[in-house]
Amino acid sequence: MTRVAILGGTGYTALELCRILLNHPEARITALTSRTETGHVGDVHPSLAGRLDLRLENLSPTQLAERADVVFGCLPHVASMETVPSLLDAGLKVIDLSADYRLTDAAVYEKWYGHAHTDAGRLKSTVYGLPELFADKIPGQSLIANPGCYTSTSILALAPLVCGGYVEPTGIIIDAKSGVSGAGRSAKQNLLYAECNENFAAYSVGTHRHQPEIEQVLTTASGKTVDVIFIPHLTPMDRGIEATIYAVPAKSATQTELLAACRDFYRGKPFVRVVDRLPGTKDTAYTNFFDMTVRVVKDRVVILACLDNLIKGASGVAVQNFNLMCGYPETMGLLRS
Amino acid sequence: MTRVAILGGTGYTALELCRILLNHPEARITALTSRTETGHVGDVHPSLAGRLDLRLENLSPTQLAERADVVFGCLPHVASMETVPSLLDAGLKVIDLSADYRLTDAAVYEKWYGHAHTDAGRLKSTVYGLPELFADKIPGQSLIANPGCYTSTSILALAPLVCGGYVEPTGIIIDAKSGVSGAGRSAKQNLLYAECNENFAAYSVGTHRHQPEIEQVLTTASGKTVDVIFIPHLTPMDRGIEATIYAVPAKSATQTELLAACRDFYRGKPFVRVVDRLPGTKDTAYTNFFDMTVRVVKDRVVILACLDNLIKGASGVAVQNFNLMCGYPETMGLLRS
Amino acid sequence: MTRVAILGGTGYTALELCRILLNHPEARITALTSRTETGHVGDVHPSLAGRLDLRLENLSPTQLAERADVVFGCLPHVASMETVPSLLDAGLKVIDLSADYRLTDAAVYEKWYGHAHTDAGRLKSTVYGLPELFADKIPGQSLIANPGCYTSTSILALAPLVCGGYVEPTGIIIDAKSGVSGAGRSAKQNLLYAECNENFAAYSVGTHRHQPEIEQVLTTASGKTVDVIFIPHLTPMDRGIEATIYAVPAKSATQTELLAACRDFYRGKPFVRVVDRLPGTKDTAYTNFFDMTVRVVKDRVVILACLDNLIKGASGVAVQNFNLMCGYPETMGLLRS
Amino acid sequence: MTRVAILGGTGYTALELCRILLNHPEARITALTSRTETGHVGDVHPSLAGRLDLRLENLSPTQLAERADVVFGCLPHVASMETVPSLLDAGLKVIDLSADYRLTDAAVYEKWYGHAHTDAGRLKSTVYGLPELFADKIPGQSLIANPGCYTSTSILALAPLVCGGYVEPTGIIIDAKSGVSGAGRSAKQNLLYAECNENFAAYSVGTHRHQPEIEQVLTTASGKTVDVIFIPHLTPMDRGIEATIYAVPAKSATQTELLAACRDFYRGKPFVRVVDRLPGTKDTAYTNFFDMTVRVVKDRVVILACLDNLIKGASGVAVQNFNLMCGYPETMGLLRS
Repeated sequence: MTRVAILGGTGYTALELCRILLNHPEARITALTSRTETGHVGDVHPSLAGRLDLRLENLSPTQLAERADVVFGCLPHVASMETVPSLLDAGLKVIDLSADYRLTDAAVYEKWYGHAHTDAGRLKSTVYGLPELFADKIPGQSLIANPGCYTSTSILALAPLVCGGYVEPTGIIIDAKSGVSGAGRSAKQNLLYAECNENFAAYSVGTHRHQPEIEQVLTTASGKTVDVIFIPHLTPMDRGIEATIYAVPAKSATQTELLAACRDFYRGKPFVRVVDRLPGTKDTAYTNFFDMTVRVVKDRVVILACLDNLIKGASGVAVQNFNLMCGYPETMGLLRS
Repeated sequence: MTRVAILGGTGYTALELCRILLNHPEARITALTSRTETGHVGDVHPSLAGRLDLRLENLSPTQLAERADVVFGCLPHVASMETVPSLLDAGLKVIDLSADYRLTDAAVYEKWYGHAHTDAGRLKSTVYGLPELFADKIPGQSLIANPGCYTSTSILALAPLVCGGYVEPTGIIIDAKSGVSGAGRSAKQNLLYAECNENFAAYSVGTHRHQPEIEQVLTTASGKTVDVIFIPHLTPMDRGIEATIYAVPAKSATQTELLAACRDFYRGKPFVRVVDRLPGTKDTAYTNFFDMTVRVVKDRVVILACLDNLIKGASGVAVQNFNLMCGYPETMGLLRS
Repeated sequence: MTRVAILGGTGYTALELCRILLNHPEARITALTSRTETGHVGDVHPSLAGRLDLRLENLSPTQLAERADVVFGCLPHVASMETVPSLLDAGLKVIDLSADYRLTDAAVYEKWYGHAHTDAGRLKSTVYGLPELFADKIPGQSLIANPGCYTSTSILALAPLVCGGYVEPTGIIIDAKSGVSGAGRSAKQNLLYAECNENFAAYSVGTHRHQPEIEQVLTTASGKTVDVIFIPHLTPMDRGIEATIYAVPAKSATQTELLAACRDFYRGKPFVRVVDRLPGTKDTAYTNFFDMTVRVVKDRVVILACLDNLIKGASGVAVQNFNLMCGYPETMGLLRS
Repeated sequence: MTRVAILGGTGYTALELCRILLNHPEARITALTSRTETGHVGDVHPSLAGRLDLRLENLSPTQLAERADVVFGCLPHVASMETVPSLLDAGLKVIDLSADYRLTDAAVYEKWYGHAHTDAGRLKSTVYGLPELFADKIPGQSLIANPGCYTSTSILALAPLVCGGYVEPTGIIIDAKSGVSGAGRSAKQNLLYAECNENFAAYSVGTHRHQPEIEQVLTTASGKTVDVIFIPHLTPMDRGIEATIYAVPAKSATQTELLAACRDFYRGKPFVRVVDRLPGTKDTAYTNFFDMTVRVVKDRVVILACLDNLIKGASGVAVQNFNLMCGYPETMGLLRS
């Protein structure tokens, strides 16, 4: 049994972590923190009423270290890098769901996030927690940078064909669509129901912070300099990301061969499904699955991929990382084997 | 041609007024006000881009009187009663969409709204702008209290059978459901897309401020003391109110007779449709229609009614009132005859 | 380990059973049937791809008995009563999710369903599978009539106060709202996205078949003749039922006392949450919980209740029944204890 | 006053035509046809109750010619080309909303639609009814091929920069997203609310019939051979199309210059808004506007565009065509000037 604490307990990723961990045979949630909220978990997250008898608390790293072995960090960026070092110093293992430890280059971080990185020394050594690519590096780590939701979708979709040399690593276009929960639980006018419902629009065109993260991780994974255009869109639904990705073929291959290459690449990975049909977000909703397929259209390879942004795109993969860090089976709490 | 100004130009009722009035042959929008926002209308309301070349402004009553003949007030309650007297003093006609002049008794206002009324002397004389009941009182008025959205739905649904003595005026249960736009455009966590979508819940049970308004107006209209239980619910849709109303029969009548009584009551009213089918909110969406029907179920009369909360429930009926105040045909700008 | 088969494998309740049972430590799905469909489960239900390696088959009772110990029947009514007797004869245990064995009186069945009952002899002895009320009767049964979704919502909401004598058993009004999945997966124009979305409407006013079922079961449970008006509404969301119920007090009791009576009534029931807040359907979505609260409004007791129509309203309670029939803990596969 | 008939009166484009034409000062709807449905318009389209006193009828071309001057054809493809010749022979003017007269090459039609064209002789001479490009050819025509919804979005978005030589005519990627009403009103399982809601997925990848239509019309308009990859997606909303389009620059130009080129191209076009913000479908919903903007991202020009698929994408542009054919102002019934 491992005792876990969740930092930043009021948001959707924290809620989703609770749902998953309450079903995990070897995890016990012992604390949820908030700097402002002191209510009972069941008041902050009514769906958890009767399931978790905790109040939100403002706890110091020392207090957390007395209560927990592993911390899931659901803090916003900047707040996260201000907190993580003291958590590690207190002997806690940390899975950080913020963006603060994902980019390895502090200058890139500063450019895209507009803040100097205050813990830059740890960037190079932090493992990026995408188990399908880096599972062997995760066990034994004390800090894992949990991937972004768009990032996981894009990287998992592209890795087989980029790494396998089937598509060019440059000139890639990622047209991504996300449900509204991806934008968080803060009260903002543009996220109101009556603004988002019956509305579909792009946002952050050319400026979304997941673009450099996608490029960095695919470059690391493939050994080639990867360059992408990434355009996100807000979709009137709670959950789910779909990415339609356009790549230039690097060698001649049929659709069947491309699908086979993807299946080979992900053989033995329990949460990836390379399917023949066109995946829909609903196929993966409320699961830790990532679904993808490939089509050849004219002179392009088109990759279509889906996942649940709160699970495989955030809290589910965080539990995969937790399992690998702690020596539990990768699927524990996520999928009955 | 009548020059109109809209006070509180950032919200949904103001947007809807613009949409309607831009299609009105005899109205010209000359000003939109805001105490905080100074942007162009097309930035605040992108759907109006290219249609209305105005910026939001913070205008005094005197400035407004130089620009407009009639003011539509889309301010919150309290703010409205602080503004309306000076608008009237400046010679403007006012259609007030807030709740401030709807209740005739200042004590009732204070009880339900938690504020002493600062313009109580005007309450008794202000006409309640529900043209289907009070059309003859509206012409020539300088101040009209525009009805609430739940209120119009409930009153229009009940008036024929309460006034006609078909149902008891007491023991009435109104189970009402509204789309989220009815809650306004303020950034509140409980109105976020990811909170409201895939969610249906009651709110303000026993405390909603439209309950005394419904009772007062039906009492005035029928001459009987009307008593209702009113329970509102938030529904995952942009627009529309449905009310399912349960009343005790006061005399023996078949469903056919009840429907005929309703049709008689509303004969010649261009925006009321007494239908045989069960009305759905979509039947009235983006129109100024109010649809209703009646069923007899066991020992109860069940009335089912729908309207678009932003149009017939707010800005559409406000234009009906505008037409009647200014001597234009009641349907102008709302319905081609 | 118990081997289970699902009859009528193409619909939403079958899909939901698969999702739950794939997470159940003691159940193994060995067959899904369909009279028309022969595809792989992963094609019929893409979300199950890779999780269940079965094709839909048209199997006889004998063939089913070779493969399974327990059958979940997801057939439409009439089809169900034509099949159940032979399943029982073949030695199978049956949990029937159709309406065919819920009503104890064949004449009532014929009146509301428009078909003579062809297995009327079994109606009196079949146990109604609502474990919160009848858990002691379920173990050892070979046939369980699984309750309707509106029915469970209404009965669970009313049972404490009707049985406890707090409200009158007659004159009860149930205003219920359901997500669209409750209407099934058949291709019907009125269930199209573009018809249901942004639409809210009542249907089957005075004629819905869950009304006699609610009355029968509450009468059995309370020993008083219960009489209700039941009005269902279709709500633009996938899942969830909310019922707002209006009852006449039978004795003086405060809201606090009524809430306490409900909590007493459901003490030890793992899937009922009597809450202080107003429940929303999202609080129970994707869970087997039933949430309820009570308010006193004027001279009425108002009960507000929610559940997930596909889980607690269908497939989740079916697994509760399965657990009780087979001697597993009631919560197995539904909730980690 | 022009008398108009609508063929195929049961679907969404027919409904939308009725809504628009009922507000048109010079059009009078005199007939709606259906081969199967004989109900009153108000029963088939409840939102039209009380507004149009017609029944659906199965009328011959001769009968139609006695009642109407202009026919709007809302028939499916194939059915349309079987009907249009006899309508023209009967002296009617026809605006055909089907795809049957949009492609100029019968072989291309046969390839993409799987039917030999039975009226191929008329293909070359039929004018494509996209008034922003071909307004001068529409007056005086007796047959207009009304454009597809994805097609109008894509062509209007690309025309300024392709025709102006700012982007290469080949290698264009169109990632398009549509609300569900675009799929029509037929009862199909994949269009059910519970299938489409909370779901986002691509469909018809590489096979959608609007691809050759986009290429043909842009080629005609620009005089260059245009080649596009077109990928449509189904979005959980009623209405609206968004297209995010990726093109290769053909000459050096800043974002500001590209926006200026678009504004120049559409100067004087009342329904096109070249905006600075990123357009959302809700900005154009329930209007005949087409909104677009341009961004330069890395080495690509990204064009983002929106319209309402049922209005600017179908019935609204049909009324624009009607106005131009009949000599009325282009905006009549669509926009107050």
